[in-house]
Amino acid sequence: MKPLKPLDEALADLLTRAVPLGDAETVTSFDADGRVLAHDCVSALQVPPEDNSSMDGYAVRCADVPSAGVVLPVSQRIPAGSAGDALAPGTAARIFTGAPVPAGADAILMQEDCEALPGAADGLGQVRINTVPKSGQWIRRAGEDITRGAVVLSAGTRLTPAELGLAASIGLHQLQVARRPRVALFSTGDELVMPGEVPPEQMRPGAIYNSNRFFLRAMLLRLGCEVTDFGIVPDRREATIDALRTASAAHDLILTSGGVSVGEEDHIKPAVEALGTLELWQLAMKPGKPFAYGQIPRSGNDDSGAAHFMGLPGNPVSSFLTFALLVRPFVLRLQGVKDVAPQSIAARADFAWPKADKRREFLRVRHNAAGGLDLFHNQSSGVLTSAAWGDGVVDNPAGQTIAADDTVRFIAFAELLS
Amino acid sequence: MKPLKPLDEALADLLTRAVPLGDAETVTSFDADGRVLAHDCVSALQVPPEDNSSMDGYAVRCADVPSAGVVLPVSQRIPAGSAGDALAPGTAARIFTGAPVPAGADAILMQEDCEALPGAADGLGQVRINTVPKSGQWIRRAGEDITRGAVVLSAGTRLTPAELGLAASIGLHQLQVARRPRVALFSTGDELVMPGEVPPEQMRPGAIYNSNRFFLRAMLLRLGCEVTDFGIVPDRREATIDALRTASAAHDLILTSGGVSVGEEDHIKPAVEALGTLELWQLAMKPGKPFAYGQIPRSGNDDSGAAHFMGLPGNPVSSFLTFALLVRPFVLRLQGVKDVAPQSIAARADFAWPKADKRREFLRVRHNAAGGLDLFHNQSSGVLTSAAWGDGVVDNPAGQTIAADDTVRFIAFAELLS
Repeated sequence: MKPLKPLDEALADLLTRAVPLGDAETVTSFDADGRVLAHDCVSALQVPPEDNSSMDGYAVRCADVPSAGVVLPVSQRIPAGSAGDALAPGTAARIFTGAPVPAGADAILMQEDCEALPGAADGLGQVRINTVPKSGQWIRRAGEDITRGAVVLSAGTRLTPAELGLAASIGLHQLQVARRPRVALFSTGDELVMPGEVPPEQMRPGAIYNSNRFFLRAMLLRLGCEVTDFGIVPDRREATIDALRTASAAHDLILTSGGVSVGEEDHIKPAVEALGTLELWQLAMKPGKPFAYGQIPRSGNDDSGAAHFMGLPGNPVSSFLTFALLVRPFVLRLQGVKDVAPQSIAARADFAWPKADKRREFLRVRHNAAGGLDLFHNQSSGVLTSAAWGDGVVDNPAGQTIAADDTVRFIAFAELLS
Repeated sequence: MKPLKPLDEALADLLTRAVPLGDAETVTSFDADGRVLAHDCVSALQVPPEDNSSMDGYAVRCADVPSAGVVLPVSQRIPAGSAGDALAPGTAARIFTGAPVPAGADAILMQEDCEALPGAADGLGQVRINTVPKSGQWIRRAGEDITRGAVVLSAGTRLTPAELGLAASIGLHQLQVARRPRVALFSTGDELVMPGEVPPEQMRPGAIYNSNRFFLRAMLLRLGCEVTDFGIVPDRREATIDALRTASAAHDLILTSGGVSVGEEDHIKPAVEALGTLELWQLAMKPGKPFAYGQIPRSGNDDSGAAHFMGLPGNPVSSFLTFALLVRPFVLRLQGVKDVAPQSIAARADFAWPKADKRREFLRVRHNAAGGLDLFHNQSSGVLTSAAWGDGVVDNPAGQTIAADDTVRFIAFAELLS
């Protein structure tokens, strides 16, 4: 039997092959959520654009307020969005949060520290100032948040709502992003039946519903891919070769689940080998042992390159986890993301796992009300109940047992699915 | 000044108002990612449908293998997806992972524990069995994963890829989900300029780009909402009232940012009050103090109800966080999700926060390579740099300082944005 391949080594191998797609496209910020920046975003302005008030109150010169109780005429009113004039000496300006500090003023007084008084010829009244201001107080300085020329977002950043807002704040309404990876999805296995085609009570013995197709497609879409679903692999070798050849011409990645175990009856392995190259790995992870990586050269001119091929195990949980831990980083790297490995955090096990495995295990767990992790009772790879119940996995090293109260490494599904 | 309203109280108040939208719709599993189940999913079948093999190997009767080294003729071959016949006594069946265990067999032997021998009349050969099997070994029992009649997914579950796969595995290709909440998005503030309309070098003094619109829209879409963007609120009272009246007729929620601080110049507050009711809250959270909740009755018959109104603070980080902590749970509850509060987990602060605030603070932080949390240097609410840089927030209680190495509560953006 082949030696088991450590997961980290498998990931590193895959990432050396994941050459980022060269071509970028321009999208509006409204359509850019989840996409990956192809170029740096450089600020052509500073934020805030000028010194502005961080409070509703009054702008003054400190020199005019040497002691509490000073009364100053209010010479102007500066709402947010207006510019204001230079502050006449010996006066105060009524000012609101976000409004630019008028030239000459060097402090803002909160309105809670002031008292508006009636009267004064121009109708703006007077203000009594009940504290002594410190120079610079409640002023947000120009460029304090973003300096002109700063790289606000770097190429390779995966955009989330916060980044969309940040890009907008420097005036960008269009962004250059990596194009969507094009992924062809195949299902394989004579036992598979599509939900909706045969009702449960008419399922023939040995048949099971194809569930992998649904979560793989959804996960690919969440990663920004365009997905073509080729359905179930044809049951003849020549037809399989034709389907793979067609898919390779127009896709960056061909993804399949099932048919990669040793000894499995399947048309896809020999078909990939007939068209290109295929490596069969036995991963040192549980669930999720068998995994295939290959390349199918595109016919056409010499520059047309090759489509990547990945074969996931057929068991749903194995398929789900190998996707999350290997395909997801690969697809993100195709889009230019640098830091693609999922992040684990420390958490407390509120369960015991007394039997170590020689493979690195990914146990489906869920946070409980006490802040610890509970283990799903059935860790079989057969159904997705554990993944639907859980909020993540414990990444448990090979040969490691777990006792209650141990600190373990937790990877959240929220992270693996985003 | 009004007393500050604790965040938990504000959320509880909002959730009492978030009556789930009654109407459901049917979507295919392909289109259901992120939606919320309106009805329980009950399994009409058991998974696995029958006892099956969890290994590639041989099915036998234990009584036929009393000791290691027994040689049995191979009487049939059962790939996954086929049914097999009852196992003839004194024979073994070649069997593959997932294939049904033939009647009469009570154990599976891994192929690694067996040796295929040539010969035998029917061409299937013989097998030498090198270990003594235990009854039931390597057999996945019918219904082990899902029993017939079990509630596999409950009403109120928010669907992710794993749930889509799970639903498919019991044969469901269509799901009943809550309809999408319809949200009208308004921006407010005379200082706002839309990115793309004015280039940075031509911005008038005091003007800033509207960034909130971009992340609010993206966050609403992630929560499954239909969003109508009404742009910037008209600058006349009657026009504002008309726009709000129009929006309330066709939307479940009207969301705006800016214009809810005390003393702010704004048309939206009086317009909401002219049409319905409005409560102005001062939240005991930082950033994010001002918040407004109201209702605008729909004109028409008595049953047409009212649209919800929520006014977020205008500062980008305040707007982002009040959305994540208040609007997100509200919108999920409208769709019938029960457990809507974001989950915090314990983490280690690798920073100090020596100055306590009287408000509960949400500090933008990021995990470092050592597994602790680093603090973003600028915690101002003015720009989203901190939210784009960070991977979450520390939820720090009012009056609490933080020393390096302290355990703090962390909420991941991956959770708040999903």
